[in-house]
Amino acid sequence: MNVVKVGLLGLGTVGGGTVNVLAKNSNDISRRTGCQVIVTKASARDITRPRICDTDGIKLTTNPDEIINDPDIQIVIELMGGEEPAKSLIIAALEQGKHVITANKALIANYGNELFAIATKNNVTLAYEAAIAGGIPIVKAMREGLSANSIEWLAGIINGTGNFILTEMRDKGSDFADVLKEAQELGYAEADPEYDVEGIDAAHKLCILASLAFGMPLNFEKVYTEGISKVTPLDVTYAEELGYRIKHLGVARKTDSGVEMRVHPTLIPEKRLIANVDGVMNAVVVNGNAVGSTLYYGPGAGADATASAVVADIVDICRVLDVPSQHYVPALGFAPDKLQELPILSIENVTTAFYLRLSVKDKPGVMAAITTILADNGISIEAVQQKEPAKRGANAQVILLTDCVVEKSLLAALTDIESLDSINEPAIRIRVESLE
Amino acid sequence: MNVVKVGLLGLGTVGGGTVNVLAKNSNDISRRTGCQVIVTKASARDITRPRICDTDGIKLTTNPDEIINDPDIQIVIELMGGEEPAKSLIIAALEQGKHVITANKALIANYGNELFAIATKNNVTLAYEAAIAGGIPIVKAMREGLSANSIEWLAGIINGTGNFILTEMRDKGSDFADVLKEAQELGYAEADPEYDVEGIDAAHKLCILASLAFGMPLNFEKVYTEGISKVTPLDVTYAEELGYRIKHLGVARKTDSGVEMRVHPTLIPEKRLIANVDGVMNAVVVNGNAVGSTLYYGPGAGADATASAVVADIVDICRVLDVPSQHYVPALGFAPDKLQELPILSIENVTTAFYLRLSVKDKPGVMAAITTILADNGISIEAVQQKEPAKRGANAQVILLTDCVVEKSLLAALTDIESLDSINEPAIRIRVESLE
Repeated sequence: MNVVKVGLLGLGTVGGGTVNVLAKNSNDISRRTGCQVIVTKASARDITRPRICDTDGIKLTTNPDEIINDPDIQIVIELMGGEEPAKSLIIAALEQGKHVITANKALIANYGNELFAIATKNNVTLAYEAAIAGGIPIVKAMREGLSANSIEWLAGIINGTGNFILTEMRDKGSDFADVLKEAQELGYAEADPEYDVEGIDAAHKLCILASLAFGMPLNFEKVYTEGISKVTPLDVTYAEELGYRIKHLGVARKTDSGVEMRVHPTLIPEKRLIANVDGVMNAVVVNGNAVGSTLYYGPGAGADATASAVVADIVDICRVLDVPSQHYVPALGFAPDKLQELPILSIENVTTAFYLRLSVKDKPGVMAAITTILADNGISIEAVQQKEPAKRGANAQVILLTDCVVEKSLLAALTDIESLDSINEPAIRIRVESLE
Repeated sequence: MNVVKVGLLGLGTVGGGTVNVLAKNSNDISRRTGCQVIVTKASARDITRPRICDTDGIKLTTNPDEIINDPDIQIVIELMGGEEPAKSLIIAALEQGKHVITANKALIANYGNELFAIATKNNVTLAYEAAIAGGIPIVKAMREGLSANSIEWLAGIINGTGNFILTEMRDKGSDFADVLKEAQELGYAEADPEYDVEGIDAAHKLCILASLAFGMPLNFEKVYTEGISKVTPLDVTYAEELGYRIKHLGVARKTDSGVEMRVHPTLIPEKRLIANVDGVMNAVVVNGNAVGSTLYYGPGAGADATASAVVADIVDICRVLDVPSQHYVPALGFAPDKLQELPILSIENVTTAFYLRLSVKDKPGVMAAITTILADNGISIEAVQQKEPAKRGANAQVILLTDCVVEKSLLAALTDIESLDSINEPAIRIRVESLE
């Protein structure tokens, strides 16, 4: 049987999971590929640390170059994370003519254009299924499964930590800060939770998904990103009463005026399947002009789940090891010379519906004043509720669902509304997506 | 640009959809493949009939051999359905060295082993993504996306008509027969609905999914199949009260004693995402030993949705047209000589939980008698409810949820229960799957 030797850069959670999955499923993987896949070397900063995997037969080293320069290793798997030395090592491996697999979403989002070009030039693959939505084969679905379609939009819950926090806030009525602490204790959130809760991690993934969808180069710096730290239990409850769930959604959409790429808290009708994706799970809805909407759901993190994606990339590479590289599925699903730069819409020019919550002094005429301002700005109202003040003398809460409106028009209206005498707190606004 | 010529056998709904999708997305498909895909010929029984697609530039013929024997045609797409002449034409095309794409699930389920062997012998592909769950790329997910996993079980809503009927029964409290009529009027159900409502169509698809999951040859005749025509609104309501939905599910599971392949009405906890898949939509949950459970959801039928799968197969083939066939993804995901016959469990030997409904005369001691018989047969009870008779003197309804039990033990217990004086109607039993 053909032996394929693999080297791992990094032997933490996903690296250990990869070794474990390759070991426990080696028989099935051989039946699938006709190859025996062997991890021969792995690099780690501290090779004496206890590992989650059996390292018998794997040469451990603190020097990644030992892997990059090993002529017997055909596939290098980068699971170190971070920018450097990961980026330089990936480039070095590609230039040595090795196929590379990575789970490093930040690196692909920021440097993918450059890295994919180096892979193409060296007739090798840079595979990254594990970079988005963990074990869900979403890169494969978009690059291959939906290749008949022009993709119109996609929307995903692509950060498990954020989804866990929002789910707990709904189930228990807790504040963001309390649930975040709980998530940190459970190991679902990092000590520095910024990447997860401020949406940066989701933005990395969304940027890649958008390029896969529309056949355009990666444009991470143009993703609009808003976190969930300002979502309150009150808004979760009011959304629920209106038949919506609040999810931290990454949305990419192709419109006549440009491409939208945005990550933000979003009201979704509770009837949508994706509105019922709870806890640390991930899901992505993709809408194509032939198939309509399809959804992909599964665990977005975890050692074995992420390793499932890494090893699927290994299997793909094994199947085409000696095949000329022009036959490989292109990195972003479109031939590199056929990628098209598309205008990216700034958030002010994006059109969505909105949930608004206004804290108002309970005086006659306030509702008339608010609705008049909205009407003057051409904004239609889908639903409106006024909640009694929690106690005598406190502010009343006015909840509005608007029709679709260009964001800058809404902002103009809100400026006027916030200048009303009866309003003394900034409006709360959360975008609404019907996902139809 | 490389021109790839395609011939269609059959130009009905899916054939017309395929022409339409290729036309409207030709630019994106070229950007993906570097090929220009052209439908040059199509065969149909009546070439004068109006079509849903523009047939300009397509030579129409009543003689399929004109396509099979055309040396310029590299890909033949069989969308005629039925057994013959579809089977002979596919074989002829494969033997001419043409790649073949089919949406014919009955043909693959019944003759796939033979057809795949002919494709392999002739160094071509027989692709069939459209045969299962319409536009959902489930074949790709199982053959490639989840290739790192040993699959433990899968469960799917893989017949849209059946799911539409069960959804309407729940939403409207209607009888099966009334909803079936409505579905026929809407065009969701055939005039002869047997294939859909008796589970035969779902069994074809389940058989293929099971082979993809476990790497075994196709075994259609061993799928246990039970339809939905006996499901009543009463059971739908009682299931709901217990926190369950009734779905027509195809289930394949690998156990120590053999493989289960079965299609039947099933109670699923309403919290599972798949329990919330309504109307004509399809979904499949696949559980792998690395990734855990992932779910794939989308339209299971329709011209453009099914064409999405057909055209994805075209794109895959275009990408490897000149590649030696040993590099193709094997038809069932495992190398043909590595498929393994596995014992298939007969339904009596399958272990599941059960929902039971017993119509009992409202006499003292009946509940004790029933529960004693269950206990004597080693069957634990998870939940029990006794419903008051609808009117004085009518039977009371006893609803039971059992723990997991081997089917033959349950049947033995039911024989004893049905022989009780206080029971004068056969018990209703529906299997329960937790899908965890």
